[in-house]
Amino acid sequence: MAHIIEITEADDPRVDDFRDLSRADRRPDRPGGRGLVIAEGVVVVERLLASPYPVRALFGVRRRIEELAEATAALDVPAYVTSADVMAQVVGFHLNRGVLAVADRAPVVPAAELVERSRRLAVLEGIGDHENLGALFRNAAALGVDGVLLGPGCSDPLYRRSVRVSMGHVLRVPFAHLSTWPEDLKLLRDNGFRIAALTPRANAESLRDAALDDGRVAVLLGSEGPGLTDEAIAAADLAVRIPMAGGVDSLNVATAGAIAFHAMSGV
Amino acid sequence: MAHIIEITEADDPRVDDFRDLSRADRRPDRPGGRGLVIAEGVVVVERLLASPYPVRALFGVRRRIEELAEATAALDVPAYVTSADVMAQVVGFHLNRGVLAVADRAPVVPAAELVERSRRLAVLEGIGDHENLGALFRNAAALGVDGVLLGPGCSDPLYRRSVRVSMGHVLRVPFAHLSTWPEDLKLLRDNGFRIAALTPRANAESLRDAALDDGRVAVLLGSEGPGLTDEAIAAADLAVRIPMAGGVDSLNVATAGAIAFHAMSGV
Repeated sequence: MAHIIEITEADDPRVDDFRDLSRADRRPDRPGGRGLVIAEGVVVVERLLASPYPVRALFGVRRRIEELAEATAALDVPAYVTSADVMAQVVGFHLNRGVLAVADRAPVVPAAELVERSRRLAVLEGIGDHENLGALFRNAAALGVDGVLLGPGCSDPLYRRSVRVSMGHVLRVPFAHLSTWPEDLKLLRDNGFRIAALTPRANAESLRDAALDDGRVAVLLGSEGPGLTDEAIAAADLAVRIPMAGGVDSLNVATAGAIAFHAMSGV
Repeated sequence: MAHIIEITEADDPRVDDFRDLSRADRRPDRPGGRGLVIAEGVVVVERLLASPYPVRALFGVRRRIEELAEATAALDVPAYVTSADVMAQVVGFHLNRGVLAVADRAPVVPAAELVERSRRLAVLEGIGDHENLGALFRNAAALGVDGVLLGPGCSDPLYRRSVRVSMGHVLRVPFAHLSTWPEDLKLLRDNGFRIAALTPRANAESLRDAALDDGRVAVLLGSEGPGLTDEAIAAADLAVRIPMAGGVDSLNVATAGAIAFHAMSGV
């Protein structure tokens, strides 16, 4: 089991990884200036423990650390136990989930490898909003999407807020980055994927008619405001739309994604 | 057009309807103790202006009030114009959307009337979270749901946060309250509706197989944690589920609703 270590003072340097969480995503001292991976609450901590990310430590009130005893049984890292008060002082606000875990980032999967082993993919362009990104991962996990490819303009899925909104599923659904856009979509086509761009354009095919549950399929999703770029739509094999009732501009991108993922699932 | 009135002092009583917005949903001085209907931002204000709710006043910076000139052309109410600073002092925080409108509540539609004139309905049980409620209305509007019936445990859809998250669609999609639960579902059956309870239970029929796009259909949605009560599921004609990938507990209720609404739409 993780080694229980009592923390009684908020300025104890051993819990520095958990200090001032509202700034935890900016770590100039870390590779690339990016923060560590932070999981909040028992359920998300469990998902972090089951993920490829190497856990550095846990930090929480005794009751929550004990709830995680089984999940941490084989783990050789410190579990810092403290009071809710000291925890709030370290973290910078009252955290009612009562437990945190922190992990190092892991090497990112190469896009080619992820494409090869997948049957259903989501490809994101310009998803800068951390909550939308997290919600997309949650929906991808629930609806059987095998992986997420991040095109230009996407935020960091391991940002603390994304991890939280995804309910930790960003730690389970593999993702990779596409560096040359939209040329890298060729990678999908070379692997027999049909690429469907989701767009509200009237000349797009209805999602229902597009039969996305057939064969290897990738769905392209763009940012909520401007949507996919013309380049991305042109690079896709087909454009599909979710028919909207009059007067409604659009669905939230994570919600539109969920509808498309369900259509792709074929179940 | 609305009458432009300059406001220079934050303590001007003419803008009291807009004061301390974070408490605006509790108005002991108003019928039922409930707040007025508050719309934030140009788009939502436009939806309020197009709604049945009687607008009392607008309040905003000049540029935003001017953007609304056409929408307010026929309106005989004051439009209070002020600086961003005075607005922040009145409202209690900086409001970057720059314009607000406030309206009285309108008499609620009787459930029987709403059921009679609808073909697609969402019926909610225990949706207490204002953001989920708002998101459900946004999704209902986008995906052609004609109305929403509120069972026990639902929050007030006209709460400020619900209005905002719904992007103002809670002002467009009619809703009604069911007072006797689940007996009032009889109202739906008497009008030829098929009632489908959405649940993750393994013995429920797959959403895809349930053919919800046929005839008059109502979908029952429960709260995110406990889901629908046994009583509600028993009172439905069928139970349907969105098949989930292994290890994922559930989708957000508004997202699950969107997938069901899309299935109901038949397009």
